[in-house]
Amino acid sequence: MPDFAEPLARLIQEFKRLPGIGQKSAQRIAFHVLRTARGDAERLAKALLDVKDNLGLCTLCNNISEGEFCPYCKDPNRDATLLCVVEEPHNILPVETTRTFSGLYHVLHGAISPLRGVGPEQLKIKSLLERVAGGNIQEIILATNPTVEGEATAVYLSRLIKPLGVRMTRIAMGIPVGSDLEFADEITMSKSLENRRDM
Amino acid sequence: MPDFAEPLARLIQEFKRLPGIGQKSAQRIAFHVLRTARGDAERLAKALLDVKDNLGLCTLCNNISEGEFCPYCKDPNRDATLLCVVEEPHNILPVETTRTFSGLYHVLHGAISPLRGVGPEQLKIKSLLERVAGGNIQEIILATNPTVEGEATAVYLSRLIKPLGVRMTRIAMGIPVGSDLEFADEITMSKSLENRRDM
Repeated sequence: MPDFAEPLARLIQEFKRLPGIGQKSAQRIAFHVLRTARGDAERLAKALLDVKDNLGLCTLCNNISEGEFCPYCKDPNRDATLLCVVEEPHNILPVETTRTFSGLYHVLHGAISPLRGVGPEQLKIKSLLERVAGGNIQEIILATNPTVEGEATAVYLSRLIKPLGVRMTRIAMGIPVGSDLEFADEITMSKSLENRRDM
Repeated sequence: MPDFAEPLARLIQEFKRLPGIGQKSAQRIAFHVLRTARGDAERLAKALLDVKDNLGLCTLCNNISEGEFCPYCKDPNRDATLLCVVEEPHNILPVETTRTFSGLYHVLHGAISPLRGVGPEQLKIKSLLERVAGGNIQEIILATNPTVEGEATAVYLSRLIKPLGVRMTRIAMGIPVGSDLEFADEITMSKSLENRRDM
């Protein structure tokens, strides 16, 4: 005998495909859906399809966008001479929440990773070069992740673009504010020492 | 400026309503949906609506069911003289996976909880009494949760039905198999001593 009625088993199966959701969580969510009003399920179903139908990529920076240009690229008050390069669209939010960056973005949609077969040609680097060739950009902040792949991508972009006369900077790596030195790993600690600043 | 494009923000909002999903998980899932094929989102959307449209409650035991009767109630090989009473439909699976129970079920859809305003009249007790009045049932296993509410419900049902001449039993509480006495709380340990068995 099957454990669940077919529609319920199928819903559990579909939830399990989502990141971070295992069998138990999928069951809990599916039973929750069963208990709630049909309107709630309808809204989630509609939101799922709307995201697929109404969103594309900004033709300038490759951020997720409802129209041709994303809100950042459309905003005339942002500093177009300063560019922040990130791996994924969701990396923009942590930069934005600091409220200290007023430039534009460029989303690579990945990082160089020979192990996973991702080379520079799979990333949105060509459109970045085109923006640089536009001549307006003075500084590019490389905000790829502090991982082997993110670091390799930053080094690659720096070597590629620096000769064109644009200032290339990398976000600082070090001890997170509010944490304790006790919990820092060796590489972070050594980066923190290496990048020490005069007081 | 909003953090996300409207359809994406809406999808994150809808995922956040599900149990066990916070802001960060909702964002991660929503970005995952963005990256996957439209067919994947379609299947999840359809599964959500199918569950609401095609599932109801078994008219006999109140389990979730595609038709009038659930698979257990429809199965002529199950022992109709033995009934296992559980709080919620998802409590059936742990009993079934033991493969030692061959009777039928009765789902109460809750437990008595004066604090949350749930009294006996909110539970599916009337239909349980009707099944008892049918005269076929010889034993009712009370498998409500080992919580204050589950225990109160078990005591209530026992006092109500025992006078009708049906054997009422309660699932055993004690130290879980494979664990260590060290980790047992006082109440579980005292239940375990109280319910000791001759060897």
